[in-house]
Amino acid sequence: AMDGAPPPTSPPGLSAYVAVSQLLGLTLLATTGAWLGHYRGGVAWHSPLQFNAHPLCMVLGMVFLQGDALLVYRVFRHEAKRSTKVLHALLHGLALVISLVGIIAVFESHRAKGIPDMYSLHSWCGMATFVLYLLQWLLGCGLFLFPGASFSLRGRYKPQHIFFGIALFILSITSCLLGITEMLLFKISDSYSHFVPEGILANTLGVLLVAFGLVVGYMLTREEWKRPPLAEELALSMDFKTLTEGESPGG
Amino acid sequence: AMDGAPPPTSPPGLSAYVAVSQLLGLTLLATTGAWLGHYRGGVAWHSPLQFNAHPLCMVLGMVFLQGDALLVYRVFRHEAKRSTKVLHALLHGLALVISLVGIIAVFESHRAKGIPDMYSLHSWCGMATFVLYLLQWLLGCGLFLFPGASFSLRGRYKPQHIFFGIALFILSITSCLLGITEMLLFKISDSYSHFVPEGILANTLGVLLVAFGLVVGYMLTREEWKRPPLAEELALSMDFKTLTEGESPGG
Repeated sequence: AMDGAPPPTSPPGLSAYVAVSQLLGLTLLATTGAWLGHYRGGVAWHSPLQFNAHPLCMVLGMVFLQGDALLVYRVFRHEAKRSTKVLHALLHGLALVISLVGIIAVFESHRAKGIPDMYSLHSWCGMATFVLYLLQWLLGCGLFLFPGASFSLRGRYKPQHIFFGIALFILSITSCLLGITEMLLFKISDSYSHFVPEGILANTLGVLLVAFGLVVGYMLTREEWKRPPLAEELALSMDFKTLTEGESPGG
Repeated sequence: AMDGAPPPTSPPGLSAYVAVSQLLGLTLLATTGAWLGHYRGGVAWHSPLQFNAHPLCMVLGMVFLQGDALLVYRVFRHEAKRSTKVLHALLHGLALVISLVGIIAVFESHRAKGIPDMYSLHSWCGMATFVLYLLQWLLGCGLFLFPGASFSLRGRYKPQHIFFGIALFILSITSCLLGITEMLLFKISDSYSHFVPEGILANTLGVLLVAFGLVVGYMLTREEWKRPPLAEELALSMDFKTLTEGESPGG
């Protein structure tokens, strides 16, 4: 198809998708900031505005950073696997810390206002997603980052890690959409049905979250865009495989 | 691993997942029915209960039937591809018809009660999902079911069809969760935060919807569970490939 052109360093199309995904991610943050800043009085910690730290932290941590952590194997496809893996774990770790701050914000704000916790579908989905995301991070670090796990255990866990990683990313976005709907029905229940600008803006944030999920999901599942093993990794994994198979011929 | 045992007709584990998915699907319908029947006065068409046809039809059409339509290539893996394809299209077609009834129910009920349409995030996500689902069905029928599309066009469209098929299934479940949240905040906004049984039941329906999505998603993405081409299909596709490549060596 590209006769005569030099072979590309990255698969064609990938860098355009990377650019679109990052633009969408930044637009997500800007839209969340605009909503909270323009219509909800801004964000502050020791104040009645503490609740507003919740949506901001969750969109930044559980969506933008989590999404970017999933993309590192596509974006840094020619780096050594070890460095990419460390970056993957660090970005997820940062996402977890920021999300924890966002969760603390909503619990403290509920206590200050006397609102019960954990009764809504948003809280059930969001909390389940956060707890499973933390577990997935711990399991991932334990099995892939620290030494000790056998080659065959890593190989068996890897497809599960990938499936649940994408599932938790989707659940994070779903939880955000539920949170947007809750917040609109709490704050502007009387005017929401009259297409007021705040409702349109928050709905648009929801659509942008879905778009970010679709673009990241497409990049992750496109077969040709998966990170190919480097030549030396391939040789190494062959050695391991031979060793492992030699150790237990019946397994 | 299964030395001495006869080769299984289906991959090990698949039939257990099929059973769990169908049990979950029926539980979804039963839970939706229990919510509407026990707490919301039941379902009827020419009546103030017309709205209640909306959640019932959407869970049946956009979740249960759409999910089962996605699973036919896993469940009927040893049937001829043509029959499985027809079943896939029929189930999606039935899902579309039932969902259309559900959409008519909410528009007619809004008109009867003087409630505006299409202002909420739920309506935006739900309507976008339904319209794209209809488009995907038309494209799928046009390219895969009816003759005319070339082998190479089918091959290029197939990964897109699969990606958007799974994405639309996830978006359908997300739209249902948004609808549950809206309905609870409209109907029991005062008691929802006191953990009343209706709130717990509807939240549980949300969790079941997520569980159904996870089980179906896992079955669809597990590499070993993909439908292997039958021997005669493989031979046929080789012939086609040779023919196609013969026709346009540069493409």
